[in-house]
Amino acid sequence: MHKLDSPQALSLRIRSFSRRSVMLSEALIKVRTLQPIQFVDLTDEINAHLAASEVEHGEVTVFSRHTTAAIKINEAEELLLEDFKQFLRRLCPPEQNYNHNDMSRRKPPIAPDERPNAHSHCMHLLLSTSETIPVADSRLALGTWQRVFLVELDGPRERQVVLRCANYVRQEPAELIEAVAANGFSGGVRNGNKLEHH
Amino acid sequence: MHKLDSPQALSLRIRSFSRRSVMLSEALIKVRTLQPIQFVDLTDEINAHLAASEVEHGEVTVFSRHTTAAIKINEAEELLLEDFKQFLRRLCPPEQNYNHNDMSRRKPPIAPDERPNAHSHCMHLLLSTSETIPVADSRLALGTWQRVFLVELDGPRERQVVLRCANYVRQEPAELIEAVAANGFSGGVRNGNKLEHH
Amino acid sequence: MHKLDSPQALSLRIRSFSRRSVMLSEALIKVRTLQPIQFVDLTDEINAHLAASEVEHGEVTVFSRHTTAAIKINEAEELLLEDFKQFLRRLCPPEQNYNHNDMSRRKPPIAPDERPNAHSHCMHLLLSTSETIPVADSRLALGTWQRVFLVELDGPRERQVVLRCANYVRQEPAELIEAVAANGFSGGVRNGNKLEHH
Repeated sequence: MHKLDSPQALSLRIRSFSRRSVMLSEALIKVRTLQPIQFVDLTDEINAHLAASEVEHGEVTVFSRHTTAAIKINEAEELLLEDFKQFLRRLCPPEQNYNHNDMSRRKPPIAPDERPNAHSHCMHLLLSTSETIPVADSRLALGTWQRVFLVELDGPRERQVVLRCANYVRQEPAELIEAVAANGFSGGVRNGNKLEHH
Repeated sequence: MHKLDSPQALSLRIRSFSRRSVMLSEALIKVRTLQPIQFVDLTDEINAHLAASEVEHGEVTVFSRHTTAAIKINEAEELLLEDFKQFLRRLCPPEQNYNHNDMSRRKPPIAPDERPNAHSHCMHLLLSTSETIPVADSRLALGTWQRVFLVELDGPRERQVVLRCANYVRQEPAELIEAVAANGFSGGVRNGNKLEHH
Repeated sequence: MHKLDSPQALSLRIRSFSRRSVMLSEALIKVRTLQPIQFVDLTDEINAHLAASEVEHGEVTVFSRHTTAAIKINEAEELLLEDFKQFLRRLCPPEQNYNHNDMSRRKPPIAPDERPNAHSHCMHLLLSTSETIPVADSRLALGTWQRVFLVELDGPRERQVVLRCANYVRQEPAELIEAVAANGFSGGVRNGNKLEHH
């Protein structure tokens, strides 16, 4: 396989931890949206859950239980979110003809609160149902500008977001050092409990 | 960070479980598709695997092993799936000129069954290779209208989908209560084995 | 729920493993990109990390810490990557008017190295921040043509990619056989350490 578009510099910094047990913690976030398309910033709520559940180090999956509400990570800049809304409406114009909106041809079951929302489903097809995000030191290990959004595409509606957190619980220091040594790693990891993160 | 597009109501319902051991179970689903673009609903097959493998509570990653077949979650409504096909063809017209389709300029390796399929790759770029889905009570914890699809974009072809399930196995009740108490949680969790889910 | 677009053949091959303990390993890959839009193939670096960390069987999450650099899996074919760049520029033209690019209307904080990059954010909205990929036999369990890319959308820049690997460590054979038998599985799994993978 040829190597394409090689970057100028590529450095790999390995930090490996050995953990024995995993704790699962979960939450359901309920959101009532107000606008047809709306970016709801869930980052603080997710961090609050991680802190309250003592999820220290691991991963969290943020999952939307809807086909017209997505999960995306991007920047929480007011003007940018307006651009996103215009962009999604340009790609999937609500006023276009869609088969799904022709209720005379639809077979049951049809939701009691069903609206002509094929454009919302098309937007959702381009976005994501979930994101899996690293957790370090009881917080989402996000970059400077990253925020986690529930993206409403057919609001206003009541929405549910599932959090599923895997917490990798530390081994006893003695066991950790032994495991790390066995794996051939050394350095900062030996310093014990407080491990550096990016 | 300013709070944008705040929702009217936001409630957080925390349910935290302590689990000790994880079981990994996996499966390979093989699909023979029939159409150039086709939405194959895998939800029942995935649920059958979860039941057969006794995956009770955890997460499953559904992963497509292809660059022109995607995994997406959306609604299994016949007319909507037609809209999706038209939408993808509008964004990535098969009849457009693409560099990738000019076999005279391609360097090896070229697949023996290669077709002019740059539009299929472009569609795939907008979709997803995998989805990670919560599992509760041995079933995918999907919302009412959510179904998991393999999305064929260059059919007919034979396709492979990998399932990777992490099953968080319950601790003994006594240990669970102890761990929960140590974490400062109480309430429904103490009621023992049958924990409520959304 | 009606079954849509049924495939001709659907076969489910179940292989279930029981594992007791999980090891977490992680790495930070730093990349210096060179072009405004650039596909950086990280597959070899990720496989090197899996081998060095002795991650044998499990999953790895590849996470971009940026809102204008994405993670996508597709084919590393030179001409196709050119098509992707043209496709992204056609969907999100850099020369179009965007609210986010009007610095006179922007509220702080503004990044010191901020550029008019709304088109990069719009491209990112259509791509992914992360991918979760199965690991088997200390390698990414990718299909023949799949490669894992960091997709630079606002380069040149320095970028960080987080790897979070869950390694499901084998039980002792005796325990494994017992657990497998208890779950009702048999066959290849009993043969011991070397389990077949797709």
